[in-house]
Amino acid sequence: MTIRVGVLGARGRMGAEVCQAVEAAPDMEIVARIDADESVHDLTQVGAEVVVDFTHPDVVMDNLRFCVEHDIRSVVGTSGFTPERQDTVRGWLADRPSAGVLIAPNFALGAVLSMKFAQLAARYYPSAEIIELHHPGKADAPSGTAAHTASLIAGARTSAGLDKAPDATTSALDGARGALVDDVRVHSVRLAGLVAHQEVLFGGEGETLTIRHDSLDRKSFMPGVLLGVRAVVDRTGLTVGLENVLTL
Amino acid sequence: MTIRVGVLGARGRMGAEVCQAVEAAPDMEIVARIDADESVHDLTQVGAEVVVDFTHPDVVMDNLRFCVEHDIRSVVGTSGFTPERQDTVRGWLADRPSAGVLIAPNFALGAVLSMKFAQLAARYYPSAEIIELHHPGKADAPSGTAAHTASLIAGARTSAGLDKAPDATTSALDGARGALVDDVRVHSVRLAGLVAHQEVLFGGEGETLTIRHDSLDRKSFMPGVLLGVRAVVDRTGLTVGLENVLTL
Amino acid sequence: MTIRVGVLGARGRMGAEVCQAVEAAPDMEIVARIDADESVHDLTQVGAEVVVDFTHPDVVMDNLRFCVEHDIRSVVGTSGFTPERQDTVRGWLADRPSAGVLIAPNFALGAVLSMKFAQLAARYYPSAEIIELHHPGKADAPSGTAAHTASLIAGARTSAGLDKAPDATTSALDGARGALVDDVRVHSVRLAGLVAHQEVLFGGEGETLTIRHDSLDRKSFMPGVLLGVRAVVDRTGLTVGLENVLTL
Amino acid sequence: MTIRVGVLGARGRMGAEVCQAVEAAPDMEIVARIDADESVHDLTQVGAEVVVDFTHPDVVMDNLRFCVEHDIRSVVGTSGFTPERQDTVRGWLADRPSAGVLIAPNFALGAVLSMKFAQLAARYYPSAEIIELHHPGKADAPSGTAAHTASLIAGARTSAGLDKAPDATTSALDGARGALVDDVRVHSVRLAGLVAHQEVLFGGEGETLTIRHDSLDRKSFMPGVLLGVRAVVDRTGLTVGLENVLTL
Repeated sequence: MTIRVGVLGARGRMGAEVCQAVEAAPDMEIVARIDADESVHDLTQVGAEVVVDFTHPDVVMDNLRFCVEHDIRSVVGTSGFTPERQDTVRGWLADRPSAGVLIAPNFALGAVLSMKFAQLAARYYPSAEIIELHHPGKADAPSGTAAHTASLIAGARTSAGLDKAPDATTSALDGARGALVDDVRVHSVRLAGLVAHQEVLFGGEGETLTIRHDSLDRKSFMPGVLLGVRAVVDRTGLTVGLENVLTL
Repeated sequence: MTIRVGVLGARGRMGAEVCQAVEAAPDMEIVARIDADESVHDLTQVGAEVVVDFTHPDVVMDNLRFCVEHDIRSVVGTSGFTPERQDTVRGWLADRPSAGVLIAPNFALGAVLSMKFAQLAARYYPSAEIIELHHPGKADAPSGTAAHTASLIAGARTSAGLDKAPDATTSALDGARGALVDDVRVHSVRLAGLVAHQEVLFGGEGETLTIRHDSLDRKSFMPGVLLGVRAVVDRTGLTVGLENVLTL
Repeated sequence: MTIRVGVLGARGRMGAEVCQAVEAAPDMEIVARIDADESVHDLTQVGAEVVVDFTHPDVVMDNLRFCVEHDIRSVVGTSGFTPERQDTVRGWLADRPSAGVLIAPNFALGAVLSMKFAQLAARYYPSAEIIELHHPGKADAPSGTAAHTASLIAGARTSAGLDKAPDATTSALDGARGALVDDVRVHSVRLAGLVAHQEVLFGGEGETLTIRHDSLDRKSFMPGVLLGVRAVVDRTGLTVGLENVLTL
Repeated sequence: MTIRVGVLGARGRMGAEVCQAVEAAPDMEIVARIDADESVHDLTQVGAEVVVDFTHPDVVMDNLRFCVEHDIRSVVGTSGFTPERQDTVRGWLADRPSAGVLIAPNFALGAVLSMKFAQLAARYYPSAEIIELHHPGKADAPSGTAAHTASLIAGARTSAGLDKAPDATTSALDGARGALVDDVRVHSVRLAGLVAHQEVLFGGEGETLTIRHDSLDRKSFMPGVLLGVRAVVDRTGLTVGLENVLTL
């Protein structure tokens, strides 16, 4: 039995990749490709079981509400899911226990695994820093993923009762030691020829542990999207973050 | 309350490090330092609760038996624990349910975490290879840690139903593609200036994930030994592998 | 004054990139785009000063002969230039001292610089090994660039009178220590998600030096091609290898 | 014929290493070991040809003057050689054309080669950044070597007429983009388990080039010291920087 998938935002850059990936998956079947100016109402007629939504913050809530009300599971990559929006979705789901939604800010398995491993390792090392490296067209520094990773590390350090990382620096040029995100140092490199890369460095007496993720192509999100589709079939309620559907 | 620790092999290279580390730990107290020509019988008189054993395959079984019989918990780093030896220890412990033994082939937290993370990541990537890099004085290639990591990856790949890693090589110089350990390629670099290093590389469409461990000093084993001492206080029976006492 | 450039093989993958790159260069002007079924005789009419040839081993010699005879300088990326072919070109150029030809097996500046730096560093380190990492669709192992780099290192080691690299390996799995190219160990990794990468590792007492080149796109050849065009304007005779026109 | 070497500061940490290294070198012979409270006048009696000076900024000028006046060549690793001090030494050497002095701020071959290669590569890449990584006990950030490397890169970029490195960052946390040294971004990581490491990253369209140096031990300075001793035998006048005696 194949999973019947509808793709919202089907002609966007991500949506188009999703269409290709779903078509290539032996256990899935694409039953609807819906773009900006088309109605989601067709989804029920074609019997969509799962919807993948890479649309726009302006329309994603309407899409989601429709899917929840019609018992179509959703995998959402559209950005802008504030805690308020997540609460709204939780409210809808409370009224509809048979529905299920998976929202993921990042579908790159390597990024998700990196964050998870960083969180697990953090409690065991006195030192932790992050270097993220991106193409020079990126507007923000540090990257959202790096900032989120830093928060996860900081949380793990706190709950393990670790002291501040050792650092005897007494004389530093402005900026040399990077940005502080929740007490974790983050360094942002911007270099022609790069795409999106991150290194998390942990250090203790006589050893270091480095977790590096290199992402070259948005195709790298597709295994995560397919994994999300397969997982949401068996999950009701709201799940935030792909890490929660990985076998870890 | 501090943990009363006895060190066996106390004047060996590892044992001496253990003595230092235990002395520096605020929650431990060293109550015995016993070396090759000294008797373990003193351990009971001084009230040792946990013994750390970095001795020799020839004497470790006698040490262990004594500790099990006298309800002293053991953390063992001595090598040579074949499945047969492990079974023997399990037999002793079956008769003494209040006793506890932790045997670990590797106390470097970074190595243990690397192996664990490699095992967790393996199911998500079509490709996996290992590069291990050591000083040129090392006799075996690949390293034991690399071979063990390869086996863990291979096991995870098999249980996830993964195909063989893609590889279109049709023309290769002998040795170029490394050694095969359970169908995982392992490459061994030997270079002056190196100590002990390992990179596990995973690759999928458009992304790679790399887990690297650098070990510069046997001091790097000490946090793992202390962690083992703290853990074995609360564990009866036989535990093999430090990964089983980490919070993962 | 702009350089008047003709592109041979203009509709091939590399040729098309060259056309774009020449058009974007402020100091060049494209005056001819000639493909497989078109004649090179137009080059004289349009006043081409330099030709860039990414065609095919079957036609490149005819192209080159025509350019040498008509005093058009050439930058050649087409493969297959055996020493015999190079001698033939040298013969033509001997009769035509005003002509100039640059043949380069590799236009990626990073690859050319890596090889040059590796050659320069080699005499100073007892140990040297190469790790090359490519996508799993590659047919040969090691890569041509890695094999060439190994030869350059071996040559530098020999002329500096270095002994064999230290290596105490007595027990190795088949292939673990890589392939031997002129006595230099080369390891070939094939991994989904990779493109074309190379690490040259040098090691001595207490230190290592690593030169890494990552190539993600054939666009990376274009700065080297443009540099070749600018250089060949001022060079008569045959030049083999882009390293000879770099300022090093 | 062996080179007769005297070591000044012979019981200091560096001096003691120098003594060992000179003794182990087949083409050298140690003829004097002089420490803080001993006189350099013995050097002439024992027929020292070359002196290696790892002493202190307070005494090094007196040592040097003595050696210049007595035609003993000097290899100097003592710090604090300001341009003024160098001018003073040049003045002495002007009066003594047969004398020779080599002053080097860094004897680690890998560091010297890294800097040289960085300088050579810089003109070919639109982007360049430096990451230096050290143990957490280091007081200054960035390291002196990183700052010097940045200056060399900046100089090469300027003379090649390169524009500023591309960087679209519009929103950055304070410090995220590192420190600016002569318009080159430098990032300083401080991590337990590290010793002294540096990565210079260059990037252009579709490719990156990375030069990494890892230094684990002050033994890594010895090959550079020996190379300096051999070189200064054949060099009169003042030489500043080991790069000037390397075959590059």
